[in-house]
Amino acid sequence: MIFPEEINVRDVTLRDGLQNENYHLSTENKLRWLDRIINAGFSCIEVTSFVHPKWVPALRDADELARQLPMLEGVEYEALIPNQKGLERFMNTGIGTAKFFLSASNAHNKANLNKTTDESLNAVGDLIQQARKDKRKIVGGIATAFTCPYSGNVPYSEVERIAERLIDSGVDELGLGDTIGTAAPKRVYEYCSKLADKFPDALISLHLHDTYGYGLTNVLAGMQAGVRLYDVAQAGLGGCPYAPGSPGNIKASQVLEFLERQDINFEIKLDDVKTFDREFPEVLYKKQNKVQS
Amino acid sequence: MIFPEEINVRDVTLRDGLQNENYHLSTENKLRWLDRIINAGFSCIEVTSFVHPKWVPALRDADELARQLPMLEGVEYEALIPNQKGLERFMNTGIGTAKFFLSASNAHNKANLNKTTDESLNAVGDLIQQARKDKRKIVGGIATAFTCPYSGNVPYSEVERIAERLIDSGVDELGLGDTIGTAAPKRVYEYCSKLADKFPDALISLHLHDTYGYGLTNVLAGMQAGVRLYDVAQAGLGGCPYAPGSPGNIKASQVLEFLERQDINFEIKLDDVKTFDREFPEVLYKKQNKVQS
Repeated sequence: MIFPEEINVRDVTLRDGLQNENYHLSTENKLRWLDRIINAGFSCIEVTSFVHPKWVPALRDADELARQLPMLEGVEYEALIPNQKGLERFMNTGIGTAKFFLSASNAHNKANLNKTTDESLNAVGDLIQQARKDKRKIVGGIATAFTCPYSGNVPYSEVERIAERLIDSGVDELGLGDTIGTAAPKRVYEYCSKLADKFPDALISLHLHDTYGYGLTNVLAGMQAGVRLYDVAQAGLGGCPYAPGSPGNIKASQVLEFLERQDINFEIKLDDVKTFDREFPEVLYKKQNKVQS
Repeated sequence: MIFPEEINVRDVTLRDGLQNENYHLSTENKLRWLDRIINAGFSCIEVTSFVHPKWVPALRDADELARQLPMLEGVEYEALIPNQKGLERFMNTGIGTAKFFLSASNAHNKANLNKTTDESLNAVGDLIQQARKDKRKIVGGIATAFTCPYSGNVPYSEVERIAERLIDSGVDELGLGDTIGTAAPKRVYEYCSKLADKFPDALISLHLHDTYGYGLTNVLAGMQAGVRLYDVAQAGLGGCPYAPGSPGNIKASQVLEFLERQDINFEIKLDDVKTFDREFPEVLYKKQNKVQS
């Protein structure tokens, strides 16, 4: 087995950690948390999505949050962009990285984006061209890259086909998502290894959920396949809408402690991160008003 | 990575699942559960420990339970034996497999057995000789084989030294225990691989706890090192006395579902096992009296 010297993590708390929550952090509170996350040592942070506020009320302050982001040397921000309107909003900000995405599963893509996978591939290609002209860094995200809540296992061939189109469009990173947390290490290892073989120059990252407790096993499988960048959320926020009450994104403190116990380095103060496990949910659930839906 | 065709599991619910609990299942209830566990397809079952009742009140009915065990074709029972008195009690039963054990960590061995590791090695050697004369199958268990609550990481050299002594004594199986659940895959893989290289004919099994959520990651690491037999408990019973409220043994249903999702075969009805997750704790906590201590 391979245990690399260093692993990088990206904090996605303020985006994926919040987007399924019925609670809304104020922009001021998000910025306060962002400050603590940066001080703990995270240098790559996904802060929001330029989605229509109607769909994700928790992120309705994307434009305002972007305006107030502290621009710091060595800190990279990233935002999700679902469509042309989102790209226009993003272009008005100083956020350096744009993440465009679609689902490898046609059924999930239709449910989530109301498009076929091929329609989304074309749309994403157009968005990427525009963002590249503006010298933004670009992540191409493939959701349901392993399994889909509607259609089950996603064939590798489909993931490779989409990956190839994204790489041909010039993405700087390929992000594979186990969107619902049902992928197990065998498939994660297989798909990541094959993609790494097929596209040896691509930077591949993993976005994992811990819905069924497979989060760390998939980190381990990804490591064996050469993946060195993982999305994490403070306190494991971001439960899955298909499995109410289940754990969400892989938890920052648990992933880092898991790495530490295996002598794998990271640039983050683990003790700080452990305090977030308690404090973040407290702020989220106790001091904020529930969004009226 | 290696994903074998088949993995075997041993049920340890009635021994390790119960021994740290403050609740006591009656012999009648244990036999009722044993029946369900057997009907679900488990063929290798650790039923009790012949420890002094004062130390483990939940297992004080070891002799009575042993007398009433249904002797069935294809079902192997196993019991723990801590000392000479325990061996004599065991010899009066029809249980086929005797598990003798010590800790690789001297500090843990002293705390647990009030002996140095070397004293325990000699004592276990004597017990094994006696059990072999009686044609019993023998498991040599090494507790704290990776990490120790008192002394931290356990050196591999010490584990190998103990393993060699046990193998020389003629054990049929070498059981490595992550007794407190703090071992991470890197160490589990390293130690299991080295032991498998050093003792290619030895049957190695793993006894894992999920205290910090590393259970499945260590199953995965063990699989890579060639380990094909794992102890599991229904409902993940058997919390660690060093981490109150934490998960216990790796949970039978979670391990089996994890295997199933990776096309790894096993001889057990997973649907039955899933019902135990709810029903076993119900019986344990609601219908039984708390042991008076």
